[in-house]
Amino acid sequence: MAMIKRLGAECIGTFWLVLGGCGSAVLAANFGGDGNPLGIGLLGVSLAFGLTVLTGAYALGHISGGHFNPAVSFGLWAGGRFSAKDLLPYIVAQTLGAIFAAWILFQIASGTAGFAIDNTSAGAFATNGFGAFSPGGYSMHAAFLCEVVLTAMFLIVILGATHKNAAAGFAPIAIGLGLTLIHLISIPVTNTSVNPARSTGVALITGGEPLSQLWLFWAAPIIGGVLGGVIYKWLGKD
Amino acid sequence: MAMIKRLGAECIGTFWLVLGGCGSAVLAANFGGDGNPLGIGLLGVSLAFGLTVLTGAYALGHISGGHFNPAVSFGLWAGGRFSAKDLLPYIVAQTLGAIFAAWILFQIASGTAGFAIDNTSAGAFATNGFGAFSPGGYSMHAAFLCEVVLTAMFLIVILGATHKNAAAGFAPIAIGLGLTLIHLISIPVTNTSVNPARSTGVALITGGEPLSQLWLFWAAPIIGGVLGGVIYKWLGKD
Amino acid sequence: MAMIKRLGAECIGTFWLVLGGCGSAVLAANFGGDGNPLGIGLLGVSLAFGLTVLTGAYALGHISGGHFNPAVSFGLWAGGRFSAKDLLPYIVAQTLGAIFAAWILFQIASGTAGFAIDNTSAGAFATNGFGAFSPGGYSMHAAFLCEVVLTAMFLIVILGATHKNAAAGFAPIAIGLGLTLIHLISIPVTNTSVNPARSTGVALITGGEPLSQLWLFWAAPIIGGVLGGVIYKWLGKD
Amino acid sequence: MAMIKRLGAECIGTFWLVLGGCGSAVLAANFGGDGNPLGIGLLGVSLAFGLTVLTGAYALGHISGGHFNPAVSFGLWAGGRFSAKDLLPYIVAQTLGAIFAAWILFQIASGTAGFAIDNTSAGAFATNGFGAFSPGGYSMHAAFLCEVVLTAMFLIVILGATHKNAAAGFAPIAIGLGLTLIHLISIPVTNTSVNPARSTGVALITGGEPLSQLWLFWAAPIIGGVLGGVIYKWLGKD
Repeated sequence: MAMIKRLGAECIGTFWLVLGGCGSAVLAANFGGDGNPLGIGLLGVSLAFGLTVLTGAYALGHISGGHFNPAVSFGLWAGGRFSAKDLLPYIVAQTLGAIFAAWILFQIASGTAGFAIDNTSAGAFATNGFGAFSPGGYSMHAAFLCEVVLTAMFLIVILGATHKNAAAGFAPIAIGLGLTLIHLISIPVTNTSVNPARSTGVALITGGEPLSQLWLFWAAPIIGGVLGGVIYKWLGKD
Repeated sequence: MAMIKRLGAECIGTFWLVLGGCGSAVLAANFGGDGNPLGIGLLGVSLAFGLTVLTGAYALGHISGGHFNPAVSFGLWAGGRFSAKDLLPYIVAQTLGAIFAAWILFQIASGTAGFAIDNTSAGAFATNGFGAFSPGGYSMHAAFLCEVVLTAMFLIVILGATHKNAAAGFAPIAIGLGLTLIHLISIPVTNTSVNPARSTGVALITGGEPLSQLWLFWAAPIIGGVLGGVIYKWLGKD
Repeated sequence: MAMIKRLGAECIGTFWLVLGGCGSAVLAANFGGDGNPLGIGLLGVSLAFGLTVLTGAYALGHISGGHFNPAVSFGLWAGGRFSAKDLLPYIVAQTLGAIFAAWILFQIASGTAGFAIDNTSAGAFATNGFGAFSPGGYSMHAAFLCEVVLTAMFLIVILGATHKNAAAGFAPIAIGLGLTLIHLISIPVTNTSVNPARSTGVALITGGEPLSQLWLFWAAPIIGGVLGGVIYKWLGKD
Repeated sequence: MAMIKRLGAECIGTFWLVLGGCGSAVLAANFGGDGNPLGIGLLGVSLAFGLTVLTGAYALGHISGGHFNPAVSFGLWAGGRFSAKDLLPYIVAQTLGAIFAAWILFQIASGTAGFAIDNTSAGAFATNGFGAFSPGGYSMHAAFLCEVVLTAMFLIVILGATHKNAAAGFAPIAIGLGLTLIHLISIPVTNTSVNPARSTGVALITGGEPLSQLWLFWAAPIIGGVLGGVIYKWLGKD
């Protein structure tokens, strides 16, 4: 497949991840106000993030491999499944898709009275954060550990489910629902990133402290992704 | 397969979509009254819409292709997968199925004391709307943008997951859960249409303003569907 | 496969359906008391019912066909896929499995202080009912219509997803999640039966009015099942 | 595959099961405090446990078989699918993975102010228990029965879904969602174990009464697993 189409698929897939995942968080998580069980809550947001990847991977995976995430691209490289020379273009395409999604989401979300982004509060516009910007007030240390471990496990799931010995065709289910699982665990800790592009898109909208904390959501997921890639490289070799 | 059976399958599939999706919204979303967490909420309704398509596509897709949605038929035509001459009969069959489902749903829903449709309030009888008839009070502009973008992405998922290079057999999972995802994002904005037939069925029951706003839920999903079809036509070509 | 193993599989599968579906309703739906969102609610119960069939069909379907429901056996017979002479033994095995599950569930549920079955209230011990015994107070007419239509659609999904032209292997997903969908719609109406064996098992524990209303949950699902079988027999014939 | 890699896969898979299942319970189940519907509740925790197994089985199942649970290893042995001589190393690897996961989870969870483990209350740090340590106050007898029956059914699902006559590739879906189902039923009874390693990992963190009750969560799941293995051995033989 031509590189331009591969990059187009990565851009659209990451657009979908941010629009769907962050969109459900911004628009629907707390629908009806505090304490209203009509809203989809953390469970609904977790499902939404996972389904963006499940659907995107079935639709676009055969074009680009369906990374939609710089940490995944790094992890696949560490696992011996992705070429170093494609890392930069993939990551640029992913990040552009995420930024465009955040911008579109802002256009929709701002279409109701009373919408405002308070970038001094945790999780504003679905941003990731730690310390005072962690939804549950978790420290930088806990946030870093959490993002590293979960991204490593994410890559083990990805590399394992796409291994030649794994059942063919099921990988998008395992990977998408794996991302749902990761959100079920860690939204309270960091609002869940495991994806630097996703973190970047929304942080550019809010600016302020979420943007200042963005470094962690590039560093920790990429370290975790590489770690997972290295572990699986050993584990999955016949 | 004979055209009459294809149209029968589209009619039944769209009947199922409206009965299941709108039915769960009308009967179960708010079960027990405001603030009662027993009700299935927006998450349950999102799941129900998606499962109508997942189940319908496995059961009927091999007969009719499993569109169940005029915007999908238009998008598949734009993507080069569906014949222009079949558009009108498919859309008529889909719309009749949706109308019949809304009528059956009314028969069931009206079987309890205190049931009433207040067609001056947003989302009455699961209708779609904008402005004062958007569940979250979103403007016409936001509603239009949201329906266009989500229907476009829906078609990208559909065309991608049914592409010859995609894993065979998994498309109904990707497409059905893609519709769940779309609802997780956008019920607060428009009560989620992305499907003109679905909007028509219930608006004919309520009449009033939801019926007056119906034009948007034909225009925006069809524009979005065609847009998604055109994008994927380029993206998916070898 | 020997008949005794087929009947064993039907008995175990229906046992699982009632233990899991009714069990989640009795033990977990309202965990923590009224208004506590920790409980799994109607959404969790809907998921549980569906997963009993999804898991049971993958595990036991290759032994018995995986009906687990007299209305399904009748519908498959009407659709030309099941032999009339096997109807009675299958239905006996299913009903025995359901009764045993209800008894085991009672043993577990009664192991906590304050457990009591009030068979004068709707939905006691996960029983089905109408009128004053419908969770949402729906009339007998609405209940009957609802059970007929949903069982008919259930059979269309079953016959379609197991049709020779459908994608092989996916039927348990479509059928199980189809049962989830049916529950998402109709728990408020009848507590959802679409399965006479499931209704019988728990009604024998409560006795009283739920047992007096049991006739409807044999009549309506079987009528619906046969209706669905007849519709699909026409629709699915090449 | 070399034994060291098989044990590595079992260790990582059980690590994932405890980190994801117990992690979601500790970090996210009750997010926002009592009565806050943003938290993922018992439904979200049930989904998380199941998804650890679904994802782990797709990723690692082709290396080790994907047991992640001593009761499963025993049950597979009883069902004639696993060698007695591998039981001990598998169980050691699983238990070590579970212990490491509980330790990592403690590192993350303790990173927020006000975190404390009260090992005198039911379900502390996601531990299993009965009597005063059952979330719903269920007796030892009910807890034992519940764990035996559910583990037996779990093994029937596992043995059935991996049977040579079952649809290939779908077993991780059936088994993972089967574990979700088991949690939907029984979190109120014992906080759901059906897995001695999972119970051990978190009980070693809390100490106290949850550790004293640990014997039941080795005995009952293993008895249930063997029972399920024996039943399916008869049922599934051609």
